[in-house]
Amino acid sequence: MFPGRVTETEMTLMLMNPKMGLATLSTPSLVLDKAVLAANAERMTSHLKDQAIRFRPHMKTAKSIDVARMAIAGNFGGVIVSTIREAEYFADHGISDITYGVSVLPDKLPRIAALVRRGVKVGVILDQCAVAEQISREAVRFGITLDVLIELDSGERRSGVTADSAELIEIGHVLERLPGTRLQGVLTHAGQSYQCRTIADIERIAEQERLSVVTAAERLRAAGLRVDVVSVGSTPTVTHGTNFEGLTEVRCGVYMFGDMMQSQIYSCSRDDIALSVLATVIGHRPALNMALIDAGALALSKDRSTGAPGLAEDIGYGLVMDMHCERRIGDVKVGHVYQEHGMLVSSGPFPFDALPVGSRIRILPNHACLTAAMYDGYNVVSGADDSGIEFWPRVNGW
Amino acid sequence: MFPGRVTETEMTLMLMNPKMGLATLSTPSLVLDKAVLAANAERMTSHLKDQAIRFRPHMKTAKSIDVARMAIAGNFGGVIVSTIREAEYFADHGISDITYGVSVLPDKLPRIAALVRRGVKVGVILDQCAVAEQISREAVRFGITLDVLIELDSGERRSGVTADSAELIEIGHVLERLPGTRLQGVLTHAGQSYQCRTIADIERIAEQERLSVVTAAERLRAAGLRVDVVSVGSTPTVTHGTNFEGLTEVRCGVYMFGDMMQSQIYSCSRDDIALSVLATVIGHRPALNMALIDAGALALSKDRSTGAPGLAEDIGYGLVMDMHCERRIGDVKVGHVYQEHGMLVSSGPFPFDALPVGSRIRILPNHACLTAAMYDGYNVVSGADDSGIEFWPRVNGW
Repeated sequence: MFPGRVTETEMTLMLMNPKMGLATLSTPSLVLDKAVLAANAERMTSHLKDQAIRFRPHMKTAKSIDVARMAIAGNFGGVIVSTIREAEYFADHGISDITYGVSVLPDKLPRIAALVRRGVKVGVILDQCAVAEQISREAVRFGITLDVLIELDSGERRSGVTADSAELIEIGHVLERLPGTRLQGVLTHAGQSYQCRTIADIERIAEQERLSVVTAAERLRAAGLRVDVVSVGSTPTVTHGTNFEGLTEVRCGVYMFGDMMQSQIYSCSRDDIALSVLATVIGHRPALNMALIDAGALALSKDRSTGAPGLAEDIGYGLVMDMHCERRIGDVKVGHVYQEHGMLVSSGPFPFDALPVGSRIRILPNHACLTAAMYDGYNVVSGADDSGIEFWPRVNGW
Repeated sequence: MFPGRVTETEMTLMLMNPKMGLATLSTPSLVLDKAVLAANAERMTSHLKDQAIRFRPHMKTAKSIDVARMAIAGNFGGVIVSTIREAEYFADHGISDITYGVSVLPDKLPRIAALVRRGVKVGVILDQCAVAEQISREAVRFGITLDVLIELDSGERRSGVTADSAELIEIGHVLERLPGTRLQGVLTHAGQSYQCRTIADIERIAEQERLSVVTAAERLRAAGLRVDVVSVGSTPTVTHGTNFEGLTEVRCGVYMFGDMMQSQIYSCSRDDIALSVLATVIGHRPALNMALIDAGALALSKDRSTGAPGLAEDIGYGLVMDMHCERRIGDVKVGHVYQEHGMLVSSGPFPFDALPVGSRIRILPNHACLTAAMYDGYNVVSGADDSGIEFWPRVNGW
């Protein structure tokens, strides 16, 4: 861009990282295709529009207010988050209805109470009577009343009570009886949908997820308790769910970006993947039939979800596309990762001519949530148009 | 800490995150034991003191100036880094001799040149003639002369030329002949030492690593080229290496913190692990013989290095210690991770009594480099003394 001897002024301009295009962006960098993101957001919003339910996007994947604005467009404006830091960040950026989607404990209360005192409507989830009692005591100490959802286990076997359990009703009564808490409803996440390998299986899990909370809500109501929110969600079950009867809310998050894992379990096509890592080929190893790139375990994460049994293709640590993400390069994938090196491999002779040293690639990740978490923000392009790259910050950490 | 109703002043104090001890720190948090770190740093410095070599600590694991100061104490003051952002950060904090330890390409030159122009001595590595020529051209454009090390492949089969290759001598001549570059020496990293399962094997790899660069240096000198730096390094080979003849420099990094993988390949004992993740037990699942914690794939990383064949014990995603890291809790480990949830498992009946809901644990990670990278800094304790927790920032990203 600056032929001949570089002057001090030109040097300063270079270091300002002007993001003049993918060819000059420093690598590795995280790239987000805004056109694809917009289509993904709109598709999900439309899919849910005809249902009598509210859609609450999960921001754990994107952790960006710019992305959140696209996800809540056309919806009621609330989000769900996976960390308190996300809750604080989205509140700072004007989102006023936030569910914290991990079992709450009293040690999280000071920061949550600060948000509530600022006027943010914060929902929390729990699945234990003893915790409900502790949360009540702490909420009273902080002078707040917390909206609480009882978490259900709809088959994931992670957290939550079962819909038929005695504890469900006990927790409901505790929340209703004690000060500082307000029973808002029930919530579940059928994370086992990620293990599905057919759409029929996903539909079955979606119905199991729905039945879990609908049954729980009926039992709580039969016990004289008020249940306003009946909430489900995971990207596969929401994408393929057709029966939303009895639900008031659905949630999901990774659909915004998609990833190779989601494309292999029918949540999206490969063309719907909005997130990728820009990397540079830094070496050729003809004797090993491999090439090296400057993106390794930190740039891509070590998630190996496409290595799970029953998936169409194991893409190692990422699938390799050309710089504008228009076509795949042969069957090249990231076969191995070191901290900062990645090794490109191919099943046949490696296409060294297509990937000269210094050339740039885009890598579609296994798992968008984990790959994005390695970066402080997104370099935003729109399809092959990289003429005005914006930078959208992310909020990492806790 | 604040009994009774919380006043506005108390609330403000709580939110200032005063780090009054591990019991009140928000979780998950990264904890660094300064006493253990100091012992690790001193042990390596002493181990190398009697050799006629310079020790250049690798900062890719710690990425912290506070840690770097302990690592360079008693040594010559230079470091090696894995990203340009680390180089910039350490230069900003006064370190003036920095090697960038990943094959350089012209696109990295603007930021490297800016460091050189500021007076930082930056070493770069490469292993291709064509790249040497490109670097020369760019260095001239930027008005700098770069110190270049030729990278050798001493058996890892990742990057580098072999010691007996024709290309080694060609690159040497190119660097010597062209303007903008200065042949400084040879460097290798025997990363295959991580695959060793006996100390005898590590010693064999250490000797292979040494011979690789010593042979390369002899060949370059025989070709009339000057070789000042002959550099090797990996934590296993430096820890167990006994013959340093012909070397001028050694490098390693993860020894500062240690981790479960390193403890299983004889680089350290479990007591030498300085890095851990503080987490809170957020739920019990008696029916599944498991407990849930608020540290998952993002808090621990998905590195599964202790699952590699031949290691003593597969600790899943981390080994569980009590809050002060004084003793292991049964044989509890993190068996599964979701984005923000971890699942504690035990081979026998789960010790629920030892780990009540709300209790805190310290998790020793598989791979310190990847776990630390998920955090913006370290909460620093000294053994069981957590009375005055300092916060040491890290530099992540590229």
